[in-house]
Amino acid sequence: MSSGSTEAENKKMINQKPAIAAIATALGEAGISVIRVSGQDAIEKVSQVFKGKKLPDQETHTAHFGRIMDGKRIVDEVVVTIFRSPKSYTGEDIVEISCHGGVLVTQEILEVMLRQGVRHADPGEFTQRAFLNGKMELSQAEAVADMIHAKSRKAVEAAGQQLEGALGRHVAQFRQQIIDATAMVELELDFIEEDVEFANKEELLRLLKEVDSESGRLLETYEAGRLVKYGVQTVFVGRPNAGKSTLLNTLMGKDRAIVSATAGTTRDVIDADWSFGGLTFTLTDTAGLRETADEIESEGVRRSESAVANADLIIYLKDVSESADEEEERLLKRIEERSEGKVLLKVGAKADLLEEHPADWNSSGVEKSESPKTSRNSGSSDKPEKGGGGLVAGSREWCDLVISAKDGTGIEELKQRMRSEVLKNREIDTGKLLVTSSRHRDGLEKARHHVREALKALENDLTGDFLAIDLRAALNELGAITGEITTEDLLDSIFSRFCIGK
Amino acid sequence: MSSGSTEAENKKMINQKPAIAAIATALGEAGISVIRVSGQDAIEKVSQVFKGKKLPDQETHTAHFGRIMDGKRIVDEVVVTIFRSPKSYTGEDIVEISCHGGVLVTQEILEVMLRQGVRHADPGEFTQRAFLNGKMELSQAEAVADMIHAKSRKAVEAAGQQLEGALGRHVAQFRQQIIDATAMVELELDFIEEDVEFANKEELLRLLKEVDSESGRLLETYEAGRLVKYGVQTVFVGRPNAGKSTLLNTLMGKDRAIVSATAGTTRDVIDADWSFGGLTFTLTDTAGLRETADEIESEGVRRSESAVANADLIIYLKDVSESADEEEERLLKRIEERSEGKVLLKVGAKADLLEEHPADWNSSGVEKSESPKTSRNSGSSDKPEKGGGGLVAGSREWCDLVISAKDGTGIEELKQRMRSEVLKNREIDTGKLLVTSSRHRDGLEKARHHVREALKALENDLTGDFLAIDLRAALNELGAITGEITTEDLLDSIFSRFCIGK
Repeated sequence: MSSGSTEAENKKMINQKPAIAAIATALGEAGISVIRVSGQDAIEKVSQVFKGKKLPDQETHTAHFGRIMDGKRIVDEVVVTIFRSPKSYTGEDIVEISCHGGVLVTQEILEVMLRQGVRHADPGEFTQRAFLNGKMELSQAEAVADMIHAKSRKAVEAAGQQLEGALGRHVAQFRQQIIDATAMVELELDFIEEDVEFANKEELLRLLKEVDSESGRLLETYEAGRLVKYGVQTVFVGRPNAGKSTLLNTLMGKDRAIVSATAGTTRDVIDADWSFGGLTFTLTDTAGLRETADEIESEGVRRSESAVANADLIIYLKDVSESADEEEERLLKRIEERSEGKVLLKVGAKADLLEEHPADWNSSGVEKSESPKTSRNSGSSDKPEKGGGGLVAGSREWCDLVISAKDGTGIEELKQRMRSEVLKNREIDTGKLLVTSSRHRDGLEKARHHVREALKALENDLTGDFLAIDLRAALNELGAITGEITTEDLLDSIFSRFCIGK
Repeated sequence: MSSGSTEAENKKMINQKPAIAAIATALGEAGISVIRVSGQDAIEKVSQVFKGKKLPDQETHTAHFGRIMDGKRIVDEVVVTIFRSPKSYTGEDIVEISCHGGVLVTQEILEVMLRQGVRHADPGEFTQRAFLNGKMELSQAEAVADMIHAKSRKAVEAAGQQLEGALGRHVAQFRQQIIDATAMVELELDFIEEDVEFANKEELLRLLKEVDSESGRLLETYEAGRLVKYGVQTVFVGRPNAGKSTLLNTLMGKDRAIVSATAGTTRDVIDADWSFGGLTFTLTDTAGLRETADEIESEGVRRSESAVANADLIIYLKDVSESADEEEERLLKRIEERSEGKVLLKVGAKADLLEEHPADWNSSGVEKSESPKTSRNSGSSDKPEKGGGGLVAGSREWCDLVISAKDGTGIEELKQRMRSEVLKNREIDTGKLLVTSSRHRDGLEKARHHVREALKALENDLTGDFLAIDLRAALNELGAITGEITTEDLLDSIFSRFCIGK
């Protein structure tokens, strides 16, 4: 069901609903916790259990020390802050109760509120109320969730821009340009008998082409935006004992503790978040690859290949102290086939075991990251020559770079390469707006499709009716991004992904 | 070094120090996080990175929407709340920055503050400043930490009373009584030649005996206070496959996920917190007991016995579907020897495997919790008769109660028994003040010791000089509890146990 309400309408009417409450801070032992209560009776409900000043008499944006009581029992000493409608996060009256940051005491205060007949908030319900009351447009509401889940500095930046309304402003500009175009088309429809068409057509073309190119430019940022928001899916593959886990541990350093085992009977895939250069890399270790008739082993291989299929960056490790054989060649070929369109880095590990010290390899024999031999995998083979008895141990030709987790050789360069290869030709360091949401990308793509259809119609001298239909469709798609045009299903799907308390 | 400062002096002088900052809420993905900044330049420092109203012009206890900037980059949209000295938690100027509750964005805002030259707060430093500025006495400051770490409803209550100043008031009363007594003794010293002694002696005796009995009464609450604060250390012992893990899982229900393995090569001791009836029980599973020559196995037994030694409550489980033999008798005897002064519950498990259905046993054959057969273990033997070929399977005489995790028999009664046996003769449900800290208990005990020494001196007609020394010593001990008399070492040891941000 389309609510059909516009931002302008929303801004006017603050619709205060019965109060909801939730713990707004993370649960854990800390200095303070905050319980948020929002709704028409929020101040009154908190006032009933608050021993201190008379809250209904207090002004907006003021803080008050007092005690939360459970009957005659003091639950905790607190500071409550009052925000009166419409000057609050939700647009409704809000009371924030700041208590001692114990898990249990925080839960008790929430329970005291619930016993007053305040309903427990659903996930994202505060932000949903803020959206419905016109306090923010939909892409800003989504940015709230992005900000909370941001795992890298760049993700915080991208969410910050969207929160501040940067995407909304771009979309609003596209909408305005299309509205202007629609007005011209309708003018043409009105004066269909007269000869106003030609003058309009030039201006129409200009407007729509601008929307086409600008939305195209914005869409191009999505790939970088996705990497920034969700992290770079990075998978380590190679034969058993190639040094995969050691490298992962080296990269993670002491943060290794956050490694968690994914579900499964065999712990053959391990995920860990690692941050470098403002980006998050989700590092996935895999079971060693080997050709095998064993069913369990081949299940491990299948999982490794599935991890490769879902990866943005594949790091193939080979122990350079050991000769490669035909089996390794076949395994590498399989991985190369599966990494088409992705970044594949072939890394020689355990360089410290070589007699010839490889310290200079990365800086001379193997090209630097400015002009790497292997980057986005074209699918064409730059794998080693066949027939010569397999890979030679430590062959410079084979590796993009060599490393040693033991003595640190090449580790720093590997980090830089991981970042630079992934971001190649993607501007994330320029501070410009990134599209990070697949919903926004889909909306932009559909809108752009309709605009291009309109352009085609215009070039084929189709009647204004067709143009108008396409332009209206483009407007609807853009409106769904910022929430001028929404459905309940869309809102449910967006806000259900929020955490409770936001 | 004794600071020698009194509460009264502290209250007068708020000593604003350079600002400190810390994240005050738990870190995790949530609606909001709070960064707290306290000190003489707190408002100015936040103002430098805040885009919004001019913070130095704002009144105390007011909240302001705006943005935290990192140079030209918006880090996040925030609400800052200003508390001006002395009306704040620390007594200093405080700014609380409430931002979006993402881990990274919260850390970034803290870093922005640190780059302004604000120092990162040490653990407990905000509360330490509050104490030093006379905003709370020492036992109240300790209650802040207790409130945060409270794991049961009763622990929240106990911390709430102490936070509100209940312990401080008792201690202040003892101090006043001793000060009155000291005045009498000094009057006696002044008029040593005259015959004022006798009249004073009666009054002196009355005062000191009252302190003696009242402090004794307070000290008696410590055992219950300790259980409330730290939880009831509960250990499950028995032979392998007696049903220990199953029972633990049954009690924990779905909360089993918080079980964590303790350090060690073998995972033979598992701890989990479980709450029932307002109390926390720390449940410890142990490796099955058996007599063995094997070194590794006997290490397991040693650990089980060490767990028993540290327990408040020992639950000895026996599979009632199997006959007991002499080995089981010997093992039980060892456990009984080690559980002197503790609560030992002997539980027959797997009652569902018996042919005779045991549903009525707990309510008839075995006494109810009102008059349990076994409770505080006297060390005397109520173990089964010897010589009759060992324990009989499912013998009523052997068990305090029988259970079946499978069909639920006896589980509810076991929970009630665990609580009632532990709390026997301990009043935790009366809402009266509990001493929960060993530091407070030690202080009270030492003060009481000096008071009793003074009473002895008085009864032996020793001179007033001796009395005065004892009374002064008692005053010092009491003063250390509330912090009128402190040392830096004491303060360091107390506040270093706080979390950062409090």
